[in-house]
Amino acid sequence: MNESIYLDYNASARVRPEAAGAVAAALAAVGNPSSVHAAGRAARAAVETARADIAALVGAVAGDVTLVGGGTEGNALGIASAVADGVGQIVVGATEHEAVVETAAASGLPVEVWPVNGAGLADLDWLARCLAQGPRALVCLMLANNETGVIQPVAQASALVREAGGWMHVDAVQAAGKIPVDFAALDADTLVMAAHKLGGPQGVGALVAHGRVTLTRQVHGGGQERGRRSGTENVPGIAGFGAAALAALADLPSLAIQAAWRDALAVRIEDAGGEVLGKAAPRLPQTLCFAMPGFASDLQVMNLDLAGVMISAGAACSSGKVKPSRIVEAMGRPDLATVSVRVSGGWASTEQDWKRCGDVWLEAHERHAARRRRVA
Amino acid sequence: MNESIYLDYNASARVRPEAAGAVAAALAAVGNPSSVHAAGRAARAAVETARADIAALVGAVAGDVTLVGGGTEGNALGIASAVADGVGQIVVGATEHEAVVETAAASGLPVEVWPVNGAGLADLDWLARCLAQGPRALVCLMLANNETGVIQPVAQASALVREAGGWMHVDAVQAAGKIPVDFAALDADTLVMAAHKLGGPQGVGALVAHGRVTLTRQVHGGGQERGRRSGTENVPGIAGFGAAALAALADLPSLAIQAAWRDALAVRIEDAGGEVLGKAAPRLPQTLCFAMPGFASDLQVMNLDLAGVMISAGAACSSGKVKPSRIVEAMGRPDLATVSVRVSGGWASTEQDWKRCGDVWLEAHERHAARRRRVA
Repeated sequence: MNESIYLDYNASARVRPEAAGAVAAALAAVGNPSSVHAAGRAARAAVETARADIAALVGAVAGDVTLVGGGTEGNALGIASAVADGVGQIVVGATEHEAVVETAAASGLPVEVWPVNGAGLADLDWLARCLAQGPRALVCLMLANNETGVIQPVAQASALVREAGGWMHVDAVQAAGKIPVDFAALDADTLVMAAHKLGGPQGVGALVAHGRVTLTRQVHGGGQERGRRSGTENVPGIAGFGAAALAALADLPSLAIQAAWRDALAVRIEDAGGEVLGKAAPRLPQTLCFAMPGFASDLQVMNLDLAGVMISAGAACSSGKVKPSRIVEAMGRPDLATVSVRVSGGWASTEQDWKRCGDVWLEAHERHAARRRRVA
Repeated sequence: MNESIYLDYNASARVRPEAAGAVAAALAAVGNPSSVHAAGRAARAAVETARADIAALVGAVAGDVTLVGGGTEGNALGIASAVADGVGQIVVGATEHEAVVETAAASGLPVEVWPVNGAGLADLDWLARCLAQGPRALVCLMLANNETGVIQPVAQASALVREAGGWMHVDAVQAAGKIPVDFAALDADTLVMAAHKLGGPQGVGALVAHGRVTLTRQVHGGGQERGRRSGTENVPGIAGFGAAALAALADLPSLAIQAAWRDALAVRIEDAGGEVLGKAAPRLPQTLCFAMPGFASDLQVMNLDLAGVMISAGAACSSGKVKPSRIVEAMGRPDLATVSVRVSGGWASTEQDWKRCGDVWLEAHERHAARRRRVA
């Protein structure tokens, strides 16, 4: 990986040194947090310190946080809890992650797909009408989209959901650690984070739940996490998550600066004929999704990879295969769904990384265009 | 933790240096295994290498292994898959772990508790009668018990279950990495391992499934693990698990030696009036469960902890509270259920550790006995 440039943080962020250090320390310390001896008590303390740091990243308190195995499990627990609470339908944003879409589909409840506009923003008027007509709803709206970085109007949606007596579930996996997140201001019932999207290790996440809701256990056993999630706690993972959350919170201002580097790249892409998706919406500062008609997503990714620049074609959640982007399709641009790519920076990305990405992309595009001209 | 002696490996093993190194390497490497670029492919390779090493520890092949978030989740996935396959009852060994007991109880199916004898061994005649009478059964029998180390006659039970057309589920969380385990010889349908019991990190486990059975997905989303378990793979945890499995396999002979050290301690305890539980059964080489009438479990644990020796009172799976041991009760000795403790060594334990544990326990017991004599 020498000399390579990693701009695929939305798939998995580079692990922050603070997080790697916390993981290593926990691995060296041994101990089951349920054990009463010194090692057990130290492991328990590490978990609870991390829980408080994780909560603080989204302005919540430690008691709101249930630690789980990742964002997907967090979404599953939040959705299952709302279903157990007796909602009669699930409203799912059109650009939600598969973890939400597939879990809703498997619930057995009616699922309404909540459309987004051309900028990728969920339509609040549609939601108001939907809530007025249907049974009590679980409403799932992500805080920021994984492909476009588009930031949804969650607080406004929550107000509508609250008024209708529904359950607001927020997938904040991509937002947490990249923009300020205030759990109280969002007024969500449940909110999900994943450590590995913000510089912590893979395999650990959190479900933040408001005091007014009850979580339904999905995994039975030893009764850990106050009975909400059995299984020996992933102490190194949790410690790494806590350290990453702490560092991410301190780093928010420096991450915001990347918006300028991102926008400079966008201008170069647009000058070459590309189109930025979600440009009209508020977005994460480090995410750029663009489409280049005639230049297939996987070709773009492979050409950049050969030059040592790692980006992504849509979400990296299946078997490594590139499919048309559901997100771009939902934004009303099926014409761009197979020619869009995502560039996403993070805590270790530099202005030079973004510039180099642009250089390499423009070279690849020029070669590709020349080949097409020769063929034509 | 300086100078302290850790003899609570059955709660959570000391992490092997090979495992800590593999975790650190994965944390430094970044990458989502579903990403198609160089970092993604390297992460995928790390996962698949580890999967093969994990499979090899129990004589299985990589394709049999589904990676999950720990032993509890592995048990949940195995049991849910059998339930989805249409079994009509669940037969649960009397000394199974809470992860199995509670999951079976939550299934909605009739649950039969399969008794053990005074040595802690499951009664095969009882099983034969049960299978002859009831509907098609999921039978859950652990390979080795967490408290006593008693090794169950799983292969014999499997033969009965196979004959009856049932589903054999084996919790091998405590056995894997401590004794040779042969998935084919056990002829189980599903078998569970947890990394942190054999020197890997917490938060990762495996469900090994025979080709004749189908696993039912419990977590929906991106379709990882061939659709059986969605969510970004815990690459560092999996890499650590693989390294630990490889080291544990090579280490089996050296762990077997601990049986002599364990038995030397047992003699000292018996000489002081204590009783070894499961003594008449085959047991894990590094586990000793004993009871001392009149000397409460938690007092034993606390006294040893003060002297820097960490052991356990029963299972360490609830909120750090010591309850009467279900296991000892199931063995027909309720009189010993509040005075039993577990000493469990592992890859880093020395003969000196076991001796020192005996010295400290005998001192503590003598002080305790003297106090009782004064009070009487």
